[in-house]
Amino acid sequence: MELSLTSQEIAAIIEARATRGATTETIRDIASLATARAGDISFLGNPKYKAEVPACAASVIILPIDYDGEPRPGQLYLHVDNPSAALAKLCARIEQLLWPRPAPGIHPSAVIAPTARIAASATVGPLCVVEEGAVIGERTHVEAQVFVGRHAAIGDDCWLMPGVRVASECVVKNRVRLQIGVVLGSDGFGYEFINGRHEKVPQVGRVLIEDDVEIGANTTLDRARFSQTVVGQGTKIDNLVQIAHNVVIGKHCLICSQTGISGSVTIEDYAVLAGQVGVAGHLTIGRGAKITAQTGVNANVSPGATLKGTPANPYMFEQRINVLRQRLPELFQRVDRLEKKFPAEKTSSDA
Amino acid sequence: MELSLTSQEIAAIIEARATRGATTETIRDIASLATARAGDISFLGNPKYKAEVPACAASVIILPIDYDGEPRPGQLYLHVDNPSAALAKLCARIEQLLWPRPAPGIHPSAVIAPTARIAASATVGPLCVVEEGAVIGERTHVEAQVFVGRHAAIGDDCWLMPGVRVASECVVKNRVRLQIGVVLGSDGFGYEFINGRHEKVPQVGRVLIEDDVEIGANTTLDRARFSQTVVGQGTKIDNLVQIAHNVVIGKHCLICSQTGISGSVTIEDYAVLAGQVGVAGHLTIGRGAKITAQTGVNANVSPGATLKGTPANPYMFEQRINVLRQRLPELFQRVDRLEKKFPAEKTSSDA
Amino acid sequence: MELSLTSQEIAAIIEARATRGATTETIRDIASLATARAGDISFLGNPKYKAEVPACAASVIILPIDYDGEPRPGQLYLHVDNPSAALAKLCARIEQLLWPRPAPGIHPSAVIAPTARIAASATVGPLCVVEEGAVIGERTHVEAQVFVGRHAAIGDDCWLMPGVRVASECVVKNRVRLQIGVVLGSDGFGYEFINGRHEKVPQVGRVLIEDDVEIGANTTLDRARFSQTVVGQGTKIDNLVQIAHNVVIGKHCLICSQTGISGSVTIEDYAVLAGQVGVAGHLTIGRGAKITAQTGVNANVSPGATLKGTPANPYMFEQRINVLRQRLPELFQRVDRLEKKFPAEKTSSDA
Repeated sequence: MELSLTSQEIAAIIEARATRGATTETIRDIASLATARAGDISFLGNPKYKAEVPACAASVIILPIDYDGEPRPGQLYLHVDNPSAALAKLCARIEQLLWPRPAPGIHPSAVIAPTARIAASATVGPLCVVEEGAVIGERTHVEAQVFVGRHAAIGDDCWLMPGVRVASECVVKNRVRLQIGVVLGSDGFGYEFINGRHEKVPQVGRVLIEDDVEIGANTTLDRARFSQTVVGQGTKIDNLVQIAHNVVIGKHCLICSQTGISGSVTIEDYAVLAGQVGVAGHLTIGRGAKITAQTGVNANVSPGATLKGTPANPYMFEQRINVLRQRLPELFQRVDRLEKKFPAEKTSSDA
Repeated sequence: MELSLTSQEIAAIIEARATRGATTETIRDIASLATARAGDISFLGNPKYKAEVPACAASVIILPIDYDGEPRPGQLYLHVDNPSAALAKLCARIEQLLWPRPAPGIHPSAVIAPTARIAASATVGPLCVVEEGAVIGERTHVEAQVFVGRHAAIGDDCWLMPGVRVASECVVKNRVRLQIGVVLGSDGFGYEFINGRHEKVPQVGRVLIEDDVEIGANTTLDRARFSQTVVGQGTKIDNLVQIAHNVVIGKHCLICSQTGISGSVTIEDYAVLAGQVGVAGHLTIGRGAKITAQTGVNANVSPGATLKGTPANPYMFEQRINVLRQRLPELFQRVDRLEKKFPAEKTSSDA
Repeated sequence: MELSLTSQEIAAIIEARATRGATTETIRDIASLATARAGDISFLGNPKYKAEVPACAASVIILPIDYDGEPRPGQLYLHVDNPSAALAKLCARIEQLLWPRPAPGIHPSAVIAPTARIAASATVGPLCVVEEGAVIGERTHVEAQVFVGRHAAIGDDCWLMPGVRVASECVVKNRVRLQIGVVLGSDGFGYEFINGRHEKVPQVGRVLIEDDVEIGANTTLDRARFSQTVVGQGTKIDNLVQIAHNVVIGKHCLICSQTGISGSVTIEDYAVLAGQVGVAGHLTIGRGAKITAQTGVNANVSPGATLKGTPANPYMFEQRINVLRQRLPELFQRVDRLEKKFPAEKTSSDA
């Protein structure tokens, strides 16, 4: 981050209610209280780190309005109602500085089919390919080396990072962010085993991404066998996730990195899947359910449930089982002791 | 899917043996019996859904020859011997409509080395790179932004989706489909630990993909340390799979999403690895073995075996262990009860 | 590998100390003793395979100086002090032949921003994009279709394989190898849940890759929320790994395929994470710790510890638990037997 802001500029961005001290440093980076140095800005986001403030070497520290210490020489305190919210404002401003909205227009090196329709307010970066009949909406920013296939449609105010590939017929609605290398519309993994060979089942559906979705780097979403694979409004998907054909994901879900969802699974609104979760095919994960990391789901999940383990169990039950599992050496010893006290008579069933 | 077919066209494609009713709707999508609406075609693929047919709102329904209900007004029944096979025929036809064979030729924006040999019947899309000495066979379709490295060879009738990368020296035989973002020929992960540093072991082998293989989106296959990493004829690999250096996979295997195969593993013909499986290095998985999802394989697997769990056990045994594991709370209670009945005398070994 | 070397050339490369026999074959491939054929070179790297030497059909075999058998007709033995080291020398030479350093210069199809600074000794391949203010150092080799974003900086002697994407502001130091499809600088997965929606937390930090790092195909590293995500000197990361925002990895670590590291984790020097490991957020993995495959780490790990399992336990303890877990059927039988001998009286607590 090549940040370069004066303390006055920062005070204005975060709408500081009071200041104490002063610095002439230009602020070049954000750091935690413990690691900040001259030229950094830091912040007290959590009261438990309060004791770290006096020793903090940052040039500027964002503090709650009621923090009553004194800055070091050459150090500026900016007092606000909510330091975390103030930091978010600052980061939002930095984001605008780092990634200013590019001028509309199509880079001359992009290859655009004559029948593609690209809004005049959209930006299409260098070396993109936009195929026949594809549509790109208002103010959408398509970065370098993106592929938009035949009859694919991207809505308004989307941001497609470099190397994104939206295959033919897929639909992306509005305000969607696709991180680097996202694949929308690869073929589903469907075969019929005929005469000793796996014969391909044609995959002729599409992928539909609703409004306000974000999808992480190198994540793959397969097109439906027919009909559509769907990601609902506001859902956020992390990096390297696999979404198989005909999966339907509801609204405002979170799906963390390296999770895999098998074919035809339904995930209802507000579900949260942590990292490296696996979900077997044709299941339903109920509204608001939480699946903890590395869990293997092989049955339907009730709304609101929290599951853990492979096979998946209710969270508290699985925690208890894990504790008892770790006590197996003790249990075996206790049974040994009981048996020594009461040796079994040899019987025919004691093979 | 921008489908647009009349009911007459569909009847012809699926070779309907009898019809009942009639519709004037143009068919625009395929949907399940429960979700279909006017303009959709649906089908009764599994007798257990028979009760859903009378309420189905599809404009056309594909039904078995002996289904004896009556269509709704404006609805057409098409009767065939096997509705699933009929649907597959329809999907195959739709696939041709969606993705017609492109005209042969090389897009002017592609960068082709002078010594590359590209068959006259092949198609090379926009912004591809084909390096020195590379070969692309008859009727092979290379989509946009593909990379084919030095001396790599792609056979006949292959289909390389956008963004595929085939690194130098790698060989792809005939009728192979590589989905978006597939990587063939990244370096194997090999280092020697010398004087506190990991020194790279050169990886100078190649990847060989035999006939009729399909590989899923963003899957990676490492080149061999020397000699070759091999995927045998007819094997199908899903998205985000990792195949390490010197792995040899036999014919007609299935390897599901997010599975990882460590270096020098041999997988014999007809093996099936479900999703998120891990296989440790230098092992052999026998012919026709089945490895269930999330299993961790750390020993050789006999032909025909079905394994489950980490560490992997025979499937039925692991199922039984899982049942007993869930009964650990009960078992601890039972041992508590026995001990209460027969309290242990304190001994020196009871620490 | 399109290898073509005479036996004299090979003898010179590996500095053979003695020879026995002779061959007129040109050497085209390297193979193990058991699989080698005429035209191959093989080697005895491990004494346990000594009995395979007499039957080996390779045209050239690299052997220890004290191996005393006789070659077959038309076969050449090359004797060296250390056959494995000799093979490494040969592979290094083959690597140079396969991938000669390209001539410096920028391919005319690359799109380079006017303010980008590219060293005169660097090579930038076809269809690359290098954005405003980006820097590429001396002798660095950027292959085809690579993306280097705004103000990103690549050091000297790096090698970026085809399709690598280094997003804006990210920094790569010297002698770094990035395999095909690596993503540096995708956004971290950070949201605040506000009024029923996941609101994006801006991710304005960068990724910093120190000297001598190698990163595998399609691996993703997220930029920091602020400050930086770091990979320390000499660390090697395999394919399809996920490194989340603000992770700090020390020097000379190994991170194997499909492992996922959650946000703000610290991994100290010389740690080794095997394949498909998951690490929960904000933890520290101590110096030299070893985490075995598929382990789920949900607590800090002490320096030098070896962990296994989900939840992670010390390796030897987890091994013991796994053995006892497999003996659960026996344990249940033993408790059954004890109870039969001493039936519980029905009590109110026996629900």
